Amino acid sequence: MPKEWETLAKKKREAILEAIPQEWRINNPPNDQQLDVTGAYIHQYLTPREVEITETTADDIVKQTTTGRWSAEEVTRAFCHRAALAHQLTNCLHEIFFSAALTTAKSLDAHYAQHNKPLGPLHGLPISLKDQFHVRDVETTMGYVGWIGTFEGRERTAKSPIFESEMVRELRDAGAVLFCKTAVPHTLMSGETVNNIIGYTWNPRNRNLSAGGSSGGEGALIGLRGSPVGFGTDIGGSIRIPAGFNGLYGIRPSGGRLPYEGMANSMDGQNSVLSVVGPLGTSVAGLRLVIKALLERRPWLYDPLVLELPWRDELEREVSEVTGKVGDAGMVGKLCFGVFESDGIVGPTPPVRRAVKIVVEKLKELGHVVVEWKPPPHKAILSEGMKSWWYDGGHDVKSVFALSGEPMAPQVAFYQDLEKEFSGSEIAATNVRLRQLKKEYMDYWNSTETVTGTGRPVDAIITPLAPFPAARPEMYSYYGYSTWVNVLDYTSVVVPVTNVDKEVDLVDKDYVPIDEGDKKVYDSYDPEIYDGAHVSLQLVGRRLQEEKMLAIAEYVGKAIGK
Amino acid sequence: MPKEWETLAKKKREAILEAIPQEWRINNPPNDQQLDVTGAYIHQYLTPREVEITETTADDIVKQTTTGRWSAEEVTRAFCHRAALAHQLTNCLHEIFFSAALTTAKSLDAHYAQHNKPLGPLHGLPISLKDQFHVRDVETTMGYVGWIGTFEGRERTAKSPIFESEMVRELRDAGAVLFCKTAVPHTLMSGETVNNIIGYTWNPRNRNLSAGGSSGGEGALIGLRGSPVGFGTDIGGSIRIPAGFNGLYGIRPSGGRLPYEGMANSMDGQNSVLSVVGPLGTSVAGLRLVIKALLERRPWLYDPLVLELPWRDELEREVSEVTGKVGDAGMVGKLCFGVFESDGIVGPTPPVRRAVKIVVEKLKELGHVVVEWKPPPHKAILSEGMKSWWYDGGHDVKSVFALSGEPMAPQVAFYQDLEKEFSGSEIAATNVRLRQLKKEYMDYWNSTETVTGTGRPVDAIITPLAPFPAARPEMYSYYGYSTWVNVLDYTSVVVPVTNVDKEVDLVDKDYVPIDEGDKKVYDSYDPEIYDGAHVSLQLVGRRLQEEKMLAIAEYVGKAIGK
Repeated sequence: MPKEWETLAKKKREAILEAIPQEWRINNPPNDQQLDVTGAYIHQYLTPREVEITETTADDIVKQTTTGRWSAEEVTRAFCHRAALAHQLTNCLHEIFFSAALTTAKSLDAHYAQHNKPLGPLHGLPISLKDQFHVRDVETTMGYVGWIGTFEGRERTAKSPIFESEMVRELRDAGAVLFCKTAVPHTLMSGETVNNIIGYTWNPRNRNLSAGGSSGGEGALIGLRGSPVGFGTDIGGSIRIPAGFNGLYGIRPSGGRLPYEGMANSMDGQNSVLSVVGPLGTSVAGLRLVIKALLERRPWLYDPLVLELPWRDELEREVSEVTGKVGDAGMVGKLCFGVFESDGIVGPTPPVRRAVKIVVEKLKELGHVVVEWKPPPHKAILSEGMKSWWYDGGHDVKSVFALSGEPMAPQVAFYQDLEKEFSGSEIAATNVRLRQLKKEYMDYWNSTETVTGTGRPVDAIITPLAPFPAARPEMYSYYGYSTWVNVLDYTSVVVPVTNVDKEVDLVDKDYVPIDEGDKKVYDSYDPEIYDGAHVSLQLVGRRLQEEKMLAIAEYVGKAIGK
Repeated sequence: MPKEWETLAKKKREAILEAIPQEWRINNPPNDQQLDVTGAYIHQYLTPREVEITETTADDIVKQTTTGRWSAEEVTRAFCHRAALAHQLTNCLHEIFFSAALTTAKSLDAHYAQHNKPLGPLHGLPISLKDQFHVRDVETTMGYVGWIGTFEGRERTAKSPIFESEMVRELRDAGAVLFCKTAVPHTLMSGETVNNIIGYTWNPRNRNLSAGGSSGGEGALIGLRGSPVGFGTDIGGSIRIPAGFNGLYGIRPSGGRLPYEGMANSMDGQNSVLSVVGPLGTSVAGLRLVIKALLERRPWLYDPLVLELPWRDELEREVSEVTGKVGDAGMVGKLCFGVFESDGIVGPTPPVRRAVKIVVEKLKELGHVVVEWKPPPHKAILSEGMKSWWYDGGHDVKSVFALSGEPMAPQVAFYQDLEKEFSGSEIAATNVRLRQLKKEYMDYWNSTETVTGTGRPVDAIITPLAPFPAARPEMYSYYGYSTWVNVLDYTSVVVPVTNVDKEVDLVDKDYVPIDEGDKKVYDSYDPEIYDGAHVSLQLVGRRLQEEKMLAIAEYVGKAIGK
């Protein structure tokens, strides 16, 4: 007889599928029979018009929907259809609310018809949300069986069904259409997405691989163009990893830039290294669009952790005044990039190294300065920062698993071994050390002013976001490339660079692994398995440099033809 | 035989006095023979020119020193003299480094002579610093006997003597002259200033009373015009209390506005309710001057906790465009003030009630809107916020007392009773609750938009900063009026309003105390003892509203003739 949690999980899993209209149901071939389900494969189920709509970037969609050329309803329906397909092919959704979305879309169309102007800058734009957001009349499980039928594990109240996270309110006010919530690993603390409800979320470009995590449902969904832009969260790489693994742009803003208020979370209240919320999507302009739209809502008046920092055009201009446009004769100055290919703890695999080379060579060719980034050792940053995840000795996570009795996925089973909570003194000492490490890094960054020749310190760091293009199941053994950014609270934008080519990205047989940890990652790279996978990098900037980093990422993306 | 700590403390106390040139030594009459040592009393020891210089506000001093009209040396010498007198009359200094200050002043004069322009906006301005700042070649004891001869209780290294706090560097770069460090209560966790080195810091306007704390040395020093402006820190009222008790302006900026980097602290690393650094001085323009000068140094590049928020003229203009100048026909709109006379936990004493009335009536007379402030109960804010002070079970504080074996002053002896540290889970739960309380308060604040009639929510809250004009020794039993501002991380500016008049501020015999705690405060008010004491209020604004709140405080101060 199945256990109670298994029955509950199965019922929920089936309910998600049942929310997909019959006419949108398809057969999902076994992964190994169809590794790549993007492009031509998924097109077979779509009309040319649906393909046109869903392969338009968010910024281009709103050009149509805010001017009445495309109806919100048609756009929404196309994305609902494609999202339904994406879920069947990758297990990327936790919640489907297409009919509510279509109701919203119709009312937006009615608004436009009546006023001849859009409701807001996101009028008619479908936006997907990681399953931490609370949306009216939609459940939030965060992948926990124990949360099914509850409000964050507690009994529902009269208010629970209508409660919405602050950002949801703001997105609606700006005219967005919300239509689905996307899969996460239970606990949120994994770079793979797996839980006992929907199972494993696969990478649509190569179903040998993970879609990433913890915003893995967003990654797979947008990677398959089932959504033009969506919101994830990031405490150790959870926006950037799925963005990178799926060939998307994604930004980890610094803490306090965008509203997290009223969202579910793991280990809520741990405030040494904060989880942040941010968008991932198919274009930098799309990310900028949604961030600007949110900042126009003045979230600092509604979320006590958000800073009063409106969108700063001047930070963008600082970049554009230097670069002009790619290929312009108008380039009047140089940017300076620090290149940080390996952190010396775990080396990147061959395709990631090639991606670094592609970007560095292109930027040099364009006349920019590229210097080696030689920061204070990342080891201390990582070990100190990760302590914040163990402050409560796994108390929060274990108590949620206890609600249902469901088992932990192997990816997060390390929580089993945690026990001892940190004390107030120990947490304070960690905070002091974190501040010192930030200060040292900051001083190093300032010191690069003397080597750039631009009169400024390095503008952005070019660095991997993971040692591999995407993780193989249960093989995500090193998070150092993404996590240091969280510990230092820097701004980082992921840029897609290339795809693995098994003929080019050969195993480097001469590589001498640094240690066992490095060897594990080295051994996990297999050109046959990885062929075709997206390869991405991140561009890291200082704290609260969202405008500048998006501008640089857009420039770099265009430069390398993405 | 005296104990070792007594010998050490005595030696240090004497060394401070010995740093005062012989010709500046005076006899200090017993407190009860000369309650008020300000004004005429201290003038007897000063030349008219010294009085002129030292009774000029910081903003007016730099008009002279940055244009070569007054030499930095003359200005510095005058303040050194008056500071020396102030210390002898109130015990307000921990460190005296007049000769280093005069060397700095001379080099600034030489700079001006050579370049015919000032070094920076603070050229030649003496600035005093609370004894948490590290200054080259100067000790930092923070009032702890155990820190004498050490660097924050640790053995000194070769770098210790030259180490300076980040803000010290920035102040020097802006042209300031540092000349003394001011007294604090050991632990910093008291609204009175007392320690085993310098004893008790008295209120110069009325030596029955405390100068306040924990930046009490700053309060007494500037209250006696021994410094035009100085920097304190505030985690529960420690800038505002001494500013208010000494008839000064003082601002508690929100966290992350000004650089705390490299300063000594108590319970460093507790990051639920952050201690912040900010100025107190004799004019709002003086506070603005030093804050702007610091922000021009871009402290966010040198302190990882500082936000990239340059001075925002537009926030000041929002106020001036509404108010015009006091008495102007140019007043084009109204400000709206929320008045919060009593928090319902402990009621303010009669002179504080009169101060509220003075301000409210004047603002109404000027045509502004004043509404009653009816926020969510402050009790929960206070009890939750103060938990952050007990996170480490007194571990930090007790370990410092253990270094020397010195006893705790009664004002901070509550640390004796602490033992149990908070756990990671408990701290996280506190942080969640604090965020919820902030959100509730924010929602209430937003909701006032419907009652102000100005189209905006309330601009500032008028409220006491303590239930009494100043505390009597060992009678500071309630901190609720200052501490809620820290817990919510709001911006607050203290404004001097009036002085106690024993003929007017009678005991309200009909008052029915709320409870024992309220009765204790009520009973502590005695018109005979309080006669002449400064009475101040605070104007509280939202988070990170420093520009706006200074503008409002300046307007209100002028309106009531301060």
